[in-house]
Amino acid sequence: MFNSFVSYLVSFQASQGEVKMQKSLSVYDSDGSTFAPLVVIELALETKEEAIAWLLNRVRDKQQYGGAELLVEQLTPGAQGTEKVNPNVYVVGASWQRLLYGAEDVGLFKEFNDGSMRGFTYANKHNFKEFQGDGDGFLSMAECQYIIKHELDNLRAKDEAHVPGYPKMKLYPGKSVIRRMQSKGILVQVFPLHEKEELKRLSFSWYKNIKLSFQPLDDIRHYFGEGMALYFGFLEYFTLALIPMALIGIPYYLFDWEDYDKFTVFAGFNLVWCTVILELWKRLSASLAYGWGTLSRKKAFEEPRPGFHGVLGVNPVTGRAEPLYSNAKRQLRIYLVSIPFVLLCLYLSLYVMMIYFDMEGWALMIHDEEPTFWTGVLLFIPSIIYAVVIEIMNLIYRYAAEFLTGWENHRLKSTFQNHLVLKVLVFNFFNCFASLFYIAFVMQDMVLLRQSLATLLITSQILNQIMEAFLPYWLQRRRNKKAHKRMIKTMGDKELPLSEQVKLEADMSTYLGTFDDYLELFLLFGYVSLFSCVYPLAAVLVVLNNVTEVYSDAFKMCTVFKRPFSEPAANIGVWQLAFEAMSVIAVVTNCALIGMSPQVKSYFPESETQLILWVVGFEHFLLASKFILTFVIPDVPKHIQIKLSRLEFESLEALKKRKMLEASGIPKTDK
Amino acid sequence: MFNSFVSYLVSFQASQGEVKMQKSLSVYDSDGSTFAPLVVIELALETKEEAIAWLLNRVRDKQQYGGAELLVEQLTPGAQGTEKVNPNVYVVGASWQRLLYGAEDVGLFKEFNDGSMRGFTYANKHNFKEFQGDGDGFLSMAECQYIIKHELDNLRAKDEAHVPGYPKMKLYPGKSVIRRMQSKGILVQVFPLHEKEELKRLSFSWYKNIKLSFQPLDDIRHYFGEGMALYFGFLEYFTLALIPMALIGIPYYLFDWEDYDKFTVFAGFNLVWCTVILELWKRLSASLAYGWGTLSRKKAFEEPRPGFHGVLGVNPVTGRAEPLYSNAKRQLRIYLVSIPFVLLCLYLSLYVMMIYFDMEGWALMIHDEEPTFWTGVLLFIPSIIYAVVIEIMNLIYRYAAEFLTGWENHRLKSTFQNHLVLKVLVFNFFNCFASLFYIAFVMQDMVLLRQSLATLLITSQILNQIMEAFLPYWLQRRRNKKAHKRMIKTMGDKELPLSEQVKLEADMSTYLGTFDDYLELFLLFGYVSLFSCVYPLAAVLVVLNNVTEVYSDAFKMCTVFKRPFSEPAANIGVWQLAFEAMSVIAVVTNCALIGMSPQVKSYFPESETQLILWVVGFEHFLLASKFILTFVIPDVPKHIQIKLSRLEFESLEALKKRKMLEASGIPKTDK
Repeated sequence: MFNSFVSYLVSFQASQGEVKMQKSLSVYDSDGSTFAPLVVIELALETKEEAIAWLLNRVRDKQQYGGAELLVEQLTPGAQGTEKVNPNVYVVGASWQRLLYGAEDVGLFKEFNDGSMRGFTYANKHNFKEFQGDGDGFLSMAECQYIIKHELDNLRAKDEAHVPGYPKMKLYPGKSVIRRMQSKGILVQVFPLHEKEELKRLSFSWYKNIKLSFQPLDDIRHYFGEGMALYFGFLEYFTLALIPMALIGIPYYLFDWEDYDKFTVFAGFNLVWCTVILELWKRLSASLAYGWGTLSRKKAFEEPRPGFHGVLGVNPVTGRAEPLYSNAKRQLRIYLVSIPFVLLCLYLSLYVMMIYFDMEGWALMIHDEEPTFWTGVLLFIPSIIYAVVIEIMNLIYRYAAEFLTGWENHRLKSTFQNHLVLKVLVFNFFNCFASLFYIAFVMQDMVLLRQSLATLLITSQILNQIMEAFLPYWLQRRRNKKAHKRMIKTMGDKELPLSEQVKLEADMSTYLGTFDDYLELFLLFGYVSLFSCVYPLAAVLVVLNNVTEVYSDAFKMCTVFKRPFSEPAANIGVWQLAFEAMSVIAVVTNCALIGMSPQVKSYFPESETQLILWVVGFEHFLLASKFILTFVIPDVPKHIQIKLSRLEFESLEALKKRKMLEASGIPKTDK
Repeated sequence: MFNSFVSYLVSFQASQGEVKMQKSLSVYDSDGSTFAPLVVIELALETKEEAIAWLLNRVRDKQQYGGAELLVEQLTPGAQGTEKVNPNVYVVGASWQRLLYGAEDVGLFKEFNDGSMRGFTYANKHNFKEFQGDGDGFLSMAECQYIIKHELDNLRAKDEAHVPGYPKMKLYPGKSVIRRMQSKGILVQVFPLHEKEELKRLSFSWYKNIKLSFQPLDDIRHYFGEGMALYFGFLEYFTLALIPMALIGIPYYLFDWEDYDKFTVFAGFNLVWCTVILELWKRLSASLAYGWGTLSRKKAFEEPRPGFHGVLGVNPVTGRAEPLYSNAKRQLRIYLVSIPFVLLCLYLSLYVMMIYFDMEGWALMIHDEEPTFWTGVLLFIPSIIYAVVIEIMNLIYRYAAEFLTGWENHRLKSTFQNHLVLKVLVFNFFNCFASLFYIAFVMQDMVLLRQSLATLLITSQILNQIMEAFLPYWLQRRRNKKAHKRMIKTMGDKELPLSEQVKLEADMSTYLGTFDDYLELFLLFGYVSLFSCVYPLAAVLVVLNNVTEVYSDAFKMCTVFKRPFSEPAANIGVWQLAFEAMSVIAVVTNCALIGMSPQVKSYFPESETQLILWVVGFEHFLLASKFILTFVIPDVPKHIQIKLSRLEFESLEALKKRKMLEASGIPKTDK
């Protein structure tokens, strides 16, 4: 089954997803010709006229004069209601030709005539598989929007000292205009527009009719970009990978195999499972990324992230003016403030855990004194409270970590992300699992461990589902009702005009990225891989959770949030590392649990030392095998490796041929 | 001190090493003009005339007709003695222009005018730092020889079905001519010539006057290439890194700190040491490789290695005809034959070890019965015999591993090397250290461990020095005497003519690569990092050994062996991994030794279980820190990283500029 899943994912059905841009929505540009609006720019209400004129001029200007050569028009306000409407909303588009040049600029990979993926070049455009006529429909709308965002971000100040009309908004040659205006609050937001038709089709095939099938990953990628598609691909893969675990777990639960002896088998299975699935995911993700053209795509030079500040200097790599911030200062901030803060939070979390155990003991005491139904219920209360407190602490800590990482003033968005992920992961891991470790290895109480695990898992899932699915659904319904009312008032049953659509989408919440979604999966993976041998039903619960997660995530992406700009991604990045680290910890935990089981203990009746040495030896053997396995299994499947090296070989050969022609020409003239 | 060492290594003193090619040795080519001979081709004595003519023709032919466009002449036999001389010896050279084009072909990196390292291109030649006039002296002789080897290896069959005159020597389009002739034995050898003057200077600054200074790594690289220079750099670095260990070890030995308690401190130091030096070496080697232009050099597509055979098919990457061999068959050979064979050898080694322990016990028994001076000596005899047997077994196994790896029929030289290294490493590690592990952890006899370690280390070092320094020196003296006699007989005191030099060098042994040298270092590293806390003098012995090793290796490279073709290398490759694996094992071993020390045991007087758990916890903590440390320390120093990204950025910008010019031109014509 797995094979067919892979081949399904790999077969790149671009044709099905390729859709002509909706022509119904179009605006007239200054020449009177129409263009399809792709991206919306919203400026602040009281922005000065000269700044607006200057910005629009820069956006429209020819590339050789440093402009972006895009089409941009003010949105003609539609039927206005009683509300006050911000007139400074602009829609941006571009000619097909401009977009094709832009595709080359951003280094887009497309399918070539021979079936391989190659970097698109304008000169070579007719050799690409989907290219027809003048190239209309060759790029998906998400790609067009990505290109426009890239071009807008790369609109750089020339010799302006400041934004016209705002003497305090300093500029210097090479500074991204859009970023400066955004950080100073003149530019409220830039977002891509949804495609109604396409969205309807996608949501129908994705979540609207509940059926047993894989997600339309190619369509998701087509609409939301590779980063999002990889998240959903991983979610699906993870769910499928859990099914064997869940199937093995069910009889354990049903037949009440309470003797922990049998769990030893389960723990062994657990170990193999979590190593193998992570390795296979790497290969699968490489297949997906190859089919989407992001695997061998080169990363452009990373610009400083918007919040980065420092003294103006010269970047040693680009030679351009750029704020610089001393690395030593940043290290000081990390080691003297951030790390102590994280440790303090961990201590706090430990403290809360101890309170929980006190509460637990207190509830047990009451129950033991006079056991009734209500005292039986009381036994679960501390765990539930603790689970809720954990979620709240995670949430608060998340904001603190974000603030602290921002304050560390990292130059790149990627290093910022890595430091944030690291901070959040360490705390969340500790916060969620510390009590379980304590119960398992200090108290050595397997019954309590099972009960705590179940309570934690179920409570946090219920909380998550409420936060992620029910709340957005409810908010959306309320908003839809309002919009519906307004629509009926103004225009009856006709299609929504552009101005209304823009206004509707501008009010939607902004999707903040896949961070929280991955974090949730990471914690679930932890529950399953670390302790599921004690509570085999964990896998079943996680599978159930993941299935609803797919639907609620799909729903929120399609209806609750603004469309996000697509993010090219070749893998799940730092999360792969996080999951691998968790699987190493799982080996240690499971070995310890095996060593503590009465069955294993009975093999070494006289000497506990002997038992521990055997378990430790076994654990070292497993860890070594794990590393060797990681090393031996290639990260990229053979057939894709061949395609990649063929591409590289061909470009080298072409270069050589060109040089040889030159060489055979030049010596003659030299002689 | 370390800093100055690094900066010394990094400052790339190309100017000093750049030497004009010796004009005294030159041959006349067919046009009557002279050229400097660089490489010698020796064909078998009875090679058919038509094959020779065909080969020479292909070598001389223009590149656009598929030739190598090199200069080649038969060596005019000098004053002949009574011996029979092979007339089929040819010297190969090339015009400067051809060599410069070749430098571009092989992707040589050279220092640019702005101080950065860039890929050399003929068109841009005047912007490179050392380029003067027509480029004479721009390339070192080793580089010229490397280029010629590359061009000869890439001389491919066109539509010849076989080598002329040899119907059985099949060819197919794209087959490397030189490799086919070599594998069939017509081509006896291809080797580069030594430069007498340069060699004299190098050997003087390198090993002839014994003084306290660093090795002239840049000169070594200049003469022998990057692979060799990295080996000597690593040897020197390793020796320097051992000095602190040796210094700490001496008082332990002198003051007879026999109580193992103090060794605990030593073991702790050991752990930090072996992690840190390996990380720092990675950075140092990146610095060296950057200065030598190999760090960012792209690898060309790897051709099948000479011994590879299979059914003729089409390579999926190149599309060229090439023998193919099924991967499944190879895997079967590896898993069904090679691995069982290796396991059998390990078992045999274990068996020999057991015999050693029997002998040891027998010697001890005799000594205990009636202790005299001779029975005291007898105590050391088993260890010495065992050390000699280990060396012999390693030697025999080495040949078996080479045969087996050849039989596995790997397509690439690099995979062949990796499989060979893996086989040899596992066996040598087991063979050398199994007895020590047995004594340390099964017998738990620290006195015997120390005695065995000392005997093993000293015996194997003496054996190695004899094999590596004394034997070659003796052989060389004998050979030199003979040559000297002949020289005097023929021409008195004048300089050696080319034909004599070629003959002399053709008779020298072929250097088989750095494999054995690295292997020796690996085992020495093992002795020091695994057990030196028990025998702190080990580091001192290894330092002494390494110092003599530098001199004997330098001596054998300069006088005993044929000059090897230079091998571009950016790092020490699979050996870095091997050393890192050893350092992980060292953490485990040292923690176990610490746990067994009476001092640590006294902290846990009542519970051995408690002690073991603490030690295991400590070990896990160390391993985790080690991995985090490896992850946190960047492999390439910051200033080199900046230079590399600047280069990448500039090439991207240049590409963008070119495209923008095109783009701004084309739309106008389209409109």
